[in-house]
Amino acid sequence: MPAGERLYESLVDLSVEENEAVLWNQIKAEARRDAEVEPALASYLYSTILSHSSLERSLSFHLGNKLCSSTLLSTLLYDLFLDTYSSDPGLRTATVADLRAVRTRDPACVSFSHCLLNYKGFLACQAHRIAHKLWAQSRRPLALALHSRVSEVFAVDIHPAAKFGKGILFDHATGVVIGETAVIGNNVSILHHVTLGGTGKTCGDRHPKIGDGVLIGAGATILGNVKIGAGAKIGAGSVVLIDVPPRATAVGNPARLVGGKEKPVVHEESPGESMDHTSFISEWSDYII
Amino acid sequence: MPAGERLYESLVDLSVEENEAVLWNQIKAEARRDAEVEPALASYLYSTILSHSSLERSLSFHLGNKLCSSTLLSTLLYDLFLDTYSSDPGLRTATVADLRAVRTRDPACVSFSHCLLNYKGFLACQAHRIAHKLWAQSRRPLALALHSRVSEVFAVDIHPAAKFGKGILFDHATGVVIGETAVIGNNVSILHHVTLGGTGKTCGDRHPKIGDGVLIGAGATILGNVKIGAGAKIGAGSVVLIDVPPRATAVGNPARLVGGKEKPVVHEESPGESMDHTSFISEWSDYII
Amino acid sequence: MPAGERLYESLVDLSVEENEAVLWNQIKAEARRDAEVEPALASYLYSTILSHSSLERSLSFHLGNKLCSSTLLSTLLYDLFLDTYSSDPGLRTATVADLRAVRTRDPACVSFSHCLLNYKGFLACQAHRIAHKLWAQSRRPLALALHSRVSEVFAVDIHPAAKFGKGILFDHATGVVIGETAVIGNNVSILHHVTLGGTGKTCGDRHPKIGDGVLIGAGATILGNVKIGAGAKIGAGSVVLIDVPPRATAVGNPARLVGGKEKPVVHEESPGESMDHTSFISEWSDYII
Amino acid sequence: MPAGERLYESLVDLSVEENEAVLWNQIKAEARRDAEVEPALASYLYSTILSHSSLERSLSFHLGNKLCSSTLLSTLLYDLFLDTYSSDPGLRTATVADLRAVRTRDPACVSFSHCLLNYKGFLACQAHRIAHKLWAQSRRPLALALHSRVSEVFAVDIHPAAKFGKGILFDHATGVVIGETAVIGNNVSILHHVTLGGTGKTCGDRHPKIGDGVLIGAGATILGNVKIGAGAKIGAGSVVLIDVPPRATAVGNPARLVGGKEKPVVHEESPGESMDHTSFISEWSDYII
Amino acid sequence: MPAGERLYESLVDLSVEENEAVLWNQIKAEARRDAEVEPALASYLYSTILSHSSLERSLSFHLGNKLCSSTLLSTLLYDLFLDTYSSDPGLRTATVADLRAVRTRDPACVSFSHCLLNYKGFLACQAHRIAHKLWAQSRRPLALALHSRVSEVFAVDIHPAAKFGKGILFDHATGVVIGETAVIGNNVSILHHVTLGGTGKTCGDRHPKIGDGVLIGAGATILGNVKIGAGAKIGAGSVVLIDVPPRATAVGNPARLVGGKEKPVVHEESPGESMDHTSFISEWSDYII
Amino acid sequence: MPAGERLYESLVDLSVEENEAVLWNQIKAEARRDAEVEPALASYLYSTILSHSSLERSLSFHLGNKLCSSTLLSTLLYDLFLDTYSSDPGLRTATVADLRAVRTRDPACVSFSHCLLNYKGFLACQAHRIAHKLWAQSRRPLALALHSRVSEVFAVDIHPAAKFGKGILFDHATGVVIGETAVIGNNVSILHHVTLGGTGKTCGDRHPKIGDGVLIGAGATILGNVKIGAGAKIGAGSVVLIDVPPRATAVGNPARLVGGKEKPVVHEESPGESMDHTSFISEWSDYII
Repeated sequence: MPAGERLYESLVDLSVEENEAVLWNQIKAEARRDAEVEPALASYLYSTILSHSSLERSLSFHLGNKLCSSTLLSTLLYDLFLDTYSSDPGLRTATVADLRAVRTRDPACVSFSHCLLNYKGFLACQAHRIAHKLWAQSRRPLALALHSRVSEVFAVDIHPAAKFGKGILFDHATGVVIGETAVIGNNVSILHHVTLGGTGKTCGDRHPKIGDGVLIGAGATILGNVKIGAGAKIGAGSVVLIDVPPRATAVGNPARLVGGKEKPVVHEESPGESMDHTSFISEWSDYII
Repeated sequence: MPAGERLYESLVDLSVEENEAVLWNQIKAEARRDAEVEPALASYLYSTILSHSSLERSLSFHLGNKLCSSTLLSTLLYDLFLDTYSSDPGLRTATVADLRAVRTRDPACVSFSHCLLNYKGFLACQAHRIAHKLWAQSRRPLALALHSRVSEVFAVDIHPAAKFGKGILFDHATGVVIGETAVIGNNVSILHHVTLGGTGKTCGDRHPKIGDGVLIGAGATILGNVKIGAGAKIGAGSVVLIDVPPRATAVGNPARLVGGKEKPVVHEESPGESMDHTSFISEWSDYII
Repeated sequence: MPAGERLYESLVDLSVEENEAVLWNQIKAEARRDAEVEPALASYLYSTILSHSSLERSLSFHLGNKLCSSTLLSTLLYDLFLDTYSSDPGLRTATVADLRAVRTRDPACVSFSHCLLNYKGFLACQAHRIAHKLWAQSRRPLALALHSRVSEVFAVDIHPAAKFGKGILFDHATGVVIGETAVIGNNVSILHHVTLGGTGKTCGDRHPKIGDGVLIGAGATILGNVKIGAGAKIGAGSVVLIDVPPRATAVGNPARLVGGKEKPVVHEESPGESMDHTSFISEWSDYII
Repeated sequence: MPAGERLYESLVDLSVEENEAVLWNQIKAEARRDAEVEPALASYLYSTILSHSSLERSLSFHLGNKLCSSTLLSTLLYDLFLDTYSSDPGLRTATVADLRAVRTRDPACVSFSHCLLNYKGFLACQAHRIAHKLWAQSRRPLALALHSRVSEVFAVDIHPAAKFGKGILFDHATGVVIGETAVIGNNVSILHHVTLGGTGKTCGDRHPKIGDGVLIGAGATILGNVKIGAGAKIGAGSVVLIDVPPRATAVGNPARLVGGKEKPVVHEESPGESMDHTSFISEWSDYII
Repeated sequence: MPAGERLYESLVDLSVEENEAVLWNQIKAEARRDAEVEPALASYLYSTILSHSSLERSLSFHLGNKLCSSTLLSTLLYDLFLDTYSSDPGLRTATVADLRAVRTRDPACVSFSHCLLNYKGFLACQAHRIAHKLWAQSRRPLALALHSRVSEVFAVDIHPAAKFGKGILFDHATGVVIGETAVIGNNVSILHHVTLGGTGKTCGDRHPKIGDGVLIGAGATILGNVKIGAGAKIGAGSVVLIDVPPRATAVGNPARLVGGKEKPVVHEESPGESMDHTSFISEWSDYII
Repeated sequence: MPAGERLYESLVDLSVEENEAVLWNQIKAEARRDAEVEPALASYLYSTILSHSSLERSLSFHLGNKLCSSTLLSTLLYDLFLDTYSSDPGLRTATVADLRAVRTRDPACVSFSHCLLNYKGFLACQAHRIAHKLWAQSRRPLALALHSRVSEVFAVDIHPAAKFGKGILFDHATGVVIGETAVIGNNVSILHHVTLGGTGKTCGDRHPKIGDGVLIGAGATILGNVKIGAGAKIGAGSVVLIDVPPRATAVGNPARLVGGKEKPVVHEESPGESMDHTSFISEWSDYII
């Protein structure tokens, strides 16, 4: 069991506050260690992590500096983010779950502090959670301005109305597009260039609903108000226009179910957590090069 | 009929100048309303819209601040954009048509001011129109420097020589790539990750020609000097290497015509305006999950 | 023979230093010419090229200014880049080869200076070469911070551990993702949206190995520790999950070999250099629209 | 009675909180009026005043943006200032008194908002009050860093240990220097280029003590641990090295008492509030041109 | 006759436009020469001078970049300055006269371009001329915001209502303070730390009136509505509270007339142009060290 | 004996390199201690001091960031400063002597790192030493551009041609003006607002010559090619137009010698080091208030 997973296990019994405190202490310890071995990075680590008293202050500072522009100042964003975090403790819980998701699922993620500072998928997701909160408070122009900055700075385009569960991983993240009425469950993993898109110019419920534990491969396009069942797996580059049953695997353009429409192969429960992208190859008779 | 469309209808009989004035007044009214309900955004709205006397001044300011860098100052770009707008009234007409295209076709676009400020597809398109003008004036190094900034800031890569019609919508826009000899007609809608690419290292006419009213779905790749007929529809994720007839639908990788090569199904006139992405599913016998 | 290629030929017999000096002189001559005809760009050209005494100083300055942020200052990056260049002459050789690759293979590349300043694929590749050097020196937090900035600024996500040959072209580059254990040979050309990805959350050798002279088309996704043989060609939008033999062409999702699995068509030696994307169409019986 | 003074009168019976609330409302009303008549300034007024919920938030934002540098970020300063204000309500009381002092005493001060935004003497004084608080909390390196930024940005050099009363006006303020052990009473007015300096390199109590209601003219230099009695007036350009009795006037270099050492002329009670700089001329027999 | 003066002579017969054109050409020639011998400065010279088509565009750009802040953007100021210059040709005439004044009178001024770029006294004076124009147009909040930036950036504090003649030199300029109702004639030279101040808190006409050709030495303080006659000279460090006759010299604190009150020595006509600071020493019987 | 002085003593026998190394180690130790007790400042201390390998690198970084502007980038200045330091070891020796001068003579200077980071007099002096070197290399436009930035940023205006000895302290420094042909000896201390000015518009040697060990009080004005003898003391606010003998004290406007012209009182050898500003009062019969 890798270190990341072990940590995850041991945290399960803690309260939300304890959980966050444990994580924050670990992040600071990581940053302190990095600052010691790499003085060139120490200033960066102190300003972003080590000078802050909590995870949400660190994140508000870091996001504020990344998303600001000459017409949207960092102090304004910092203030806005801090206010939003303090108004909704659920945001912090989700942030903690997302951090753990990255650390546990991505073998290239060497530390929590690395994720906090450098993963644009993680950062875009947290900015979305704030924008979504603003949207829910009917502060729509502000939510959309924030959405726009995230799309420019991280190349991740998530409509502020989209609903997200917890423990979501956006790996690499460049080019992700998620529409207004999309819903994403818990423990979902989504690779870069994935589209959860609409089907036209009709208003109303028109974007995909992604079940818990789903894994969506790089470049997959899912269009319309379709349901991707819990634990389903969508292969890289697939184009999905209709529902996919739970724990089934859809691949190709147009997407087909591995094992066939009638009796699709059913796999492990949560590919969104196991991140198994390619084990279906052996069972996919079509896949012959 | 949604509000956006009604507005569009009522403007048809106005002159270019009246048309632009009506639109600019509406944009200012929207911004004023947003500034009132959201003081945190008022500074942003005043600096980008409400302090300006015309649409092109507002746009020149906004683009100048977005595209500037430490070595290409905002004042230089602002000056350049203003000069270019004043030298060619056609640019303003195209901008007005593009703004209306977004407002009418994208149900997530809540206002003209939202589009003007936040839609990177719209902004990249206007920057391209200016770069194209500079290219046509043989100011090529400047056009290419501008092109490069647009590619970095918006992740939209349009060669300054590419020729564009009016009323073009780039929805989401991240990852769009359009080559040097590409031509795009009027009232075209192009989703994110779309490539209008070349076929190799030969110079000369080597990129796609897109007819009026075409709709190109997310992630579609069209390569070579091929002709996409007026009103054609290219499905998401398709790879198109040869011509597509007018009002036909091409889907898949490699792309096939819905209804078959011999007797392709022919649809409504302008999917680029109706934005109907997925109605072909029912007729696409292959699409079985 | 186009000018770019002629230049390439004539440089073959020079030493590394002479080679770089010849190129640097040409770049300065190009910049001087552009500054004269376009005074609006002269300041930019002097600060980025004409005020510097060598290619690596110019590049360190330009990259430092592009990749800096409010918490990672340009002077720190500039210093780091200069130090890294001076510690490893191999980096400069690779940079020269990359510059020549762009100039020779991309018909839209009008000059070396244009590539140096404006090609985000080229710039991201040079930043990666520096990050890779830092990674090899066990300065991992710094390498990852640099990696993160490249991913944000250029939308190009290359893990610092990935191993690169020389003469590599990233054309357009937006959305390229290359994983930790990927290896890329010499004279490879990779279009935008290409993924060289892993297959899950297992650590270890899990990313593609790309042979010399390979050409990978736009939007292609190659997953897992698979081997793409020297001189192979991967069609745009293909999804490749298993090995591709040398000089074969793989197209489609799932990818198939042109000519069939048993007797694949074998083409010219180095499509990565010839950039021939679409000549296989005639031989690809499946490709019927 | 001018408007400023009337306002001052009517506020005398209010509590501290009411007082501050009345003032803050007036400042917002002034800024709103200015934003309406001058759209070019509206963005500035919204970002600095109208988007904030209290005087101390507005001031923290404004000072943070003025005093930040590339190595001391605005968000850090903003945070620090907000924290300091919330830890000590006395700071807010002093700020309110200083604002009123400027408005009442300086005929060129057209509004409270004008003073809040534009008077560098007022801003330097508020920054000093914060630095002094940090000094008192033994956060000396931070207090000195802040002191240094104030000296660079406003050309006002006040040692963080100096003790200030309330209702202090620094008019024009450029070049003011105030040493470590200086003490300034209530309702003091100090013009530009005034020095309250030490006498050498001995540590210990070595700077002037300025009584309540003192007025110090432009360019006056007061050196050493001397006592300037309450209500005294120091003429412009004077050099004062020994004590000045209460309500006396010292002028010249070296300074002499108007009326003579033995029987100095005694004037009104608080020249620091009346701002009468030159009425002594008639009584100053020496002043003959 | 030094080169600067010769140039001045030869321009006397030209029209305003010709005059400005000749000067602008000379400035560009100087900048071009400097850019050639000093590549490190070429970028700076191109962005500030060589890329502009006229003196007022260059000056608007340079001032806009110097006076901007995070809440007052350079594009806004640039626009404002350009508009003001184009609305009043008299501003340009005064600028030309000021440039010539510096070049002719200051032996340390090596070129017109040096003055345009580097003399904060010249730049503060031009910014004041613009602020004064805004004040006259009743755009007072904007004029005061500009005034405030000039005071912070250049440490020169000139109330926007103060009236200036032409051909004014502020040498070194740090710490100059000029009040609301001050008036300065033509061909006046004012050294650093000079105060033209008021006498209290009474509104109304309360600041000095400086005649043509006056020279005011470093650190001189002139207070109240006093008249400094044409061609008078005020010695460094003097404190002047009453009128000074034309062509007389006032020195000391309190100031006395050289030659005595009854029969003051009368000198050359325009010390403001000859810059003779100290020739009075021989005649000043008091000056004995 | 205070700590600062003890340190000074113990360094006397070391070589230049050892001396600098000892000082640099102490600076780093101080910064490390401050970073530990004040996390809010740690980022600043790491970026300015702790991430650098030598005093001159730290100083080049710090000055580059302070003096840069939107048209003179920090990387350019950083490069220029590093190059100048490495070309002339004498510059480093002078810097070390200046640092020690501040630490030993100013009781408010709590540490070397405090001086290095926060003393604008020290920073302006180091920038002048570099500008002077450039001037001596006939890189005059560059020297003047640097001079101009120092005058704006620190309000300290030192002509690049002025010649400086070692161990110079500019205390507070605001408003200091030093002309082209001024010369300052070793171990001189100069307070704020001091002018070493010229006498008119004649070229040639026209500024004061300040002997070793001189102390010049706040606001003193010394004009013309006069000689201030070694160890002389100039009182605050004095105006000096003729020579002052060695170890004499000149005070007042016009300045007189304490003790009288014929038999001036002679004091300790180096008031520039002892910083005794006011001991002359007892002997100055005129000083009666």
